[in-house]
Amino acid sequence: MSNYVLKIDCPDEKGLVHRISGILYHHGLNMVENDEFVDRETSHFFMRSVFAGNLNIARVKKEVEAILPEESQITFSLQKAKEIVVLATREYHCLGDLLMRHHFGELNANIRSVISNHNTLKDFTERFDIPYHYIPVENLGKEEHEKLVHDCIRQYKPDYIILAKYMRIFTPSFTVKYPCKIINIHHSFLPAFVGARPYQQAYERGVKMIGASAHFVNENLDEGPIIHQDVSYVNHSQDARDMAKVGRDVERLVLAQALKLVFDDRVFVHGNKTVIL
Amino acid sequence: MSNYVLKIDCPDEKGLVHRISGILYHHGLNMVENDEFVDRETSHFFMRSVFAGNLNIARVKKEVEAILPEESQITFSLQKAKEIVVLATREYHCLGDLLMRHHFGELNANIRSVISNHNTLKDFTERFDIPYHYIPVENLGKEEHEKLVHDCIRQYKPDYIILAKYMRIFTPSFTVKYPCKIINIHHSFLPAFVGARPYQQAYERGVKMIGASAHFVNENLDEGPIIHQDVSYVNHSQDARDMAKVGRDVERLVLAQALKLVFDDRVFVHGNKTVIL
Amino acid sequence: MSNYVLKIDCPDEKGLVHRISGILYHHGLNMVENDEFVDRETSHFFMRSVFAGNLNIARVKKEVEAILPEESQITFSLQKAKEIVVLATREYHCLGDLLMRHHFGELNANIRSVISNHNTLKDFTERFDIPYHYIPVENLGKEEHEKLVHDCIRQYKPDYIILAKYMRIFTPSFTVKYPCKIINIHHSFLPAFVGARPYQQAYERGVKMIGASAHFVNENLDEGPIIHQDVSYVNHSQDARDMAKVGRDVERLVLAQALKLVFDDRVFVHGNKTVIL
Amino acid sequence: MSNYVLKIDCPDEKGLVHRISGILYHHGLNMVENDEFVDRETSHFFMRSVFAGNLNIARVKKEVEAILPEESQITFSLQKAKEIVVLATREYHCLGDLLMRHHFGELNANIRSVISNHNTLKDFTERFDIPYHYIPVENLGKEEHEKLVHDCIRQYKPDYIILAKYMRIFTPSFTVKYPCKIINIHHSFLPAFVGARPYQQAYERGVKMIGASAHFVNENLDEGPIIHQDVSYVNHSQDARDMAKVGRDVERLVLAQALKLVFDDRVFVHGNKTVIL
Repeated sequence: MSNYVLKIDCPDEKGLVHRISGILYHHGLNMVENDEFVDRETSHFFMRSVFAGNLNIARVKKEVEAILPEESQITFSLQKAKEIVVLATREYHCLGDLLMRHHFGELNANIRSVISNHNTLKDFTERFDIPYHYIPVENLGKEEHEKLVHDCIRQYKPDYIILAKYMRIFTPSFTVKYPCKIINIHHSFLPAFVGARPYQQAYERGVKMIGASAHFVNENLDEGPIIHQDVSYVNHSQDARDMAKVGRDVERLVLAQALKLVFDDRVFVHGNKTVIL
Repeated sequence: MSNYVLKIDCPDEKGLVHRISGILYHHGLNMVENDEFVDRETSHFFMRSVFAGNLNIARVKKEVEAILPEESQITFSLQKAKEIVVLATREYHCLGDLLMRHHFGELNANIRSVISNHNTLKDFTERFDIPYHYIPVENLGKEEHEKLVHDCIRQYKPDYIILAKYMRIFTPSFTVKYPCKIINIHHSFLPAFVGARPYQQAYERGVKMIGASAHFVNENLDEGPIIHQDVSYVNHSQDARDMAKVGRDVERLVLAQALKLVFDDRVFVHGNKTVIL
Repeated sequence: MSNYVLKIDCPDEKGLVHRISGILYHHGLNMVENDEFVDRETSHFFMRSVFAGNLNIARVKKEVEAILPEESQITFSLQKAKEIVVLATREYHCLGDLLMRHHFGELNANIRSVISNHNTLKDFTERFDIPYHYIPVENLGKEEHEKLVHDCIRQYKPDYIILAKYMRIFTPSFTVKYPCKIINIHHSFLPAFVGARPYQQAYERGVKMIGASAHFVNENLDEGPIIHQDVSYVNHSQDARDMAKVGRDVERLVLAQALKLVFDDRVFVHGNKTVIL
Repeated sequence: MSNYVLKIDCPDEKGLVHRISGILYHHGLNMVENDEFVDRETSHFFMRSVFAGNLNIARVKKEVEAILPEESQITFSLQKAKEIVVLATREYHCLGDLLMRHHFGELNANIRSVISNHNTLKDFTERFDIPYHYIPVENLGKEEHEKLVHDCIRQYKPDYIILAKYMRIFTPSFTVKYPCKIINIHHSFLPAFVGARPYQQAYERGVKMIGASAHFVNENLDEGPIIHQDVSYVNHSQDARDMAKVGRDVERLVLAQALKLVFDDRVFVHGNKTVIL
């Protein structure tokens, strides 16, 4: 028996829950999880339901659509492992964490391939039997390189593109093709330390905590909707290198936790924020 | 305009959400918050809804009751400040925190009085214009003292009795009168360090974290349903006194956060656990 | 018997520990705590020692000074409660926390008075028998008001000036008079959300954590050396007001913990950072 | 140029720091880090110093020994990667974390081999080119199996034996051979949930946090000195399996952080506690 996830995201109206639950009930669906949230500021309704059973998704979805306001977003699908492509550069910690969870069946996603602008992590990735595409930037313009990367990604038709310390910035013409599909792990407690050398910045500012933020990537670097954040304590005895080490442990855990939320179909994007049910 | 809170807790059945939301919809209620949870292990359904508007609670409640399974628990009430009595002994930190939040209108409860087996905190309490009942234990048997305390509590008809470091243990004949109405702050990360001198125990065990747990009191000391827990880091340089100091800050914050959940009508007790919506 | 604290902060040299400990040993001092730290980047030495006993501070200090490099900073004093003045505006949470700890002898400081540009907290402060100076800004230029505040502060000769949610910005001509003596609690995880309405900013950015930072005030607002930071988790269901509530609990705890470090003579300022021994 | 670590642990006496620092100074040693701690309850002195330079360890150590009280423990050695053997059973998360850090040179230790009573993790371990010894328990008595394991360990002469979710209990005759050399990761916030099925216990108790503790193994299971602990939040919607997942992330991070402390020669064992400098 399979589980199905229904996600609805629409302008709020009276009676929404009753109307939606009516359709589900008449189809005899066995609700396993159900959460709703209304954002009062924008008067917007969010619902996530999980059902067990065998059902004709298309038909139920059509009936639900018919009773929702216009401009509703509705996804209804079998709950299954997502297809993903992971991009990395030279740092191993986030990629390694994903490969290991994947290897032991705990990622809830299939890593179809790893793409990198360096070959540093090739041998490591291939030890886990995952294809590694090395696409160097040498002698290529920014758009040219991005096009090669995009061509490589495209063949895998991924549900999500994971930037596991990928140190290149995409152009808007790329990111616009994957709205809410690209997830990045950012080396700081956003919005602090936007930009380069964040641990050096953190060290120079004398902070007492190091953070990391996982977020969707939109056209503005570092400004997409935040999915998850966490921090770890540091002190004066730790230099920028030590802080980076602490940061790496925060980064990989924050990325893994954010991906768990996304792959469980819990995350809605609403404006520049996430709603997580 | 007022807010109303509906809490339902019953054996799970197909169609519950649809049936309940139907009644609410036909009364034209404007849902502000809505959460459901099904505990799969016990097949039990929990729902918490908040409505804005003016309504005939009794009538809606009766209709809802009619469509619920037997053995359902349903509460439906105006969302308002709770009436509470606080019991303390000699330690000020939890009581002081509650008095201060209360004084500035941030407790979501009315502290009707403070009761203590010592007069240590009398002057302090009265600075906040709250009645203080000093009921010494001298020359009294355990039951006799408890009876005096109970007589004192009773006159205030409190919604909740808060044990803010009250260092006496109630008999089951007392606690049975207030099921899920007595809230205690426990000096440890339960179930560790049950019993006396917890910080001495923690120090001797050489722990690296100090915790606190807020829980409902049932007939078994320290074993009631946990509402909230948190911890703080300690190290080898801190002795039992230092750990107690750290513990006090954790205790008062954990108690305040637990009470916020309870006073917002978010907490269900289910067996020996809490469900928090 | 009393405790004495020696703090040394100087360019690093070989043999410093040996030379300093030699003097202390020959005076028969009983070392209770001792910590050293060398900042390798700037080659700077920090030492904090606590002694029990009766001793001629001036003489020991003079001997220590004689064997230290030029440009050394050395303080040697009886470990005693600090004299402080607290400035607040209208928010009660940080001030209330300090007044309560002070009332029960747990602040390690004497609150000599509270100064405010509003009279909102007057009644509350006076319940704790602390003088309250209400200095309104109406009809006063910025410098004029600051002068009145300064005249008021000056009479108490405080060791530290605590800004417990004081919502006015001092001019450099004021802050320069109290280097490393003014401590502020900042409503964010610095350097994020510098500036006004931080919780509105945090809400709009959709962050998943709310932080607070206690720091020394220097001529650049929000940019002085950070003493302590902490965070608390939030989520999409919390609006800017809810985040501010969460923030208040973080703020008062971070301020209290920072003051404990400062009042225990553990904090060195080094450039724009703190070293905490 | 190499770094050397000196660790001293002895009954406290006046002048210790002066005498020790005198020897170090006369040898012209360049102190890079230096920390002392005196446990007042037991009047015991701890010191950890790191030096840069080239030196005759044996000679300096002998001089230091000569001026220390009897019953002093002193270790003085080149700061270098430790030799370790890792024991695991079937769970991959802690072992995987160590293998990955090791592979990228961030463990500060050489994993000489992995030993297991199952072959579940054989293929995985060998992908990292680390020898895997599968020693099944079938048809063996407890002591017989332990002897085989011990014979296997012995050939590697490890500095430390890491129990990375090794689900067998050693006899005292084994643990006594490796005092303060065996490190275990325990599936709970010790001393809570000692014993089997901790996450089931935690779930049944309805806790709101899941912890993990890394500790040295002594003759009493789960009662050795704690090195590091941490926790993660859980809620009512998570069953025992979910809590175990959360627990795994806490476990591997706590183990990695504890090992970093141990491998940096920062951990002293004192009675049943650790002092970490």
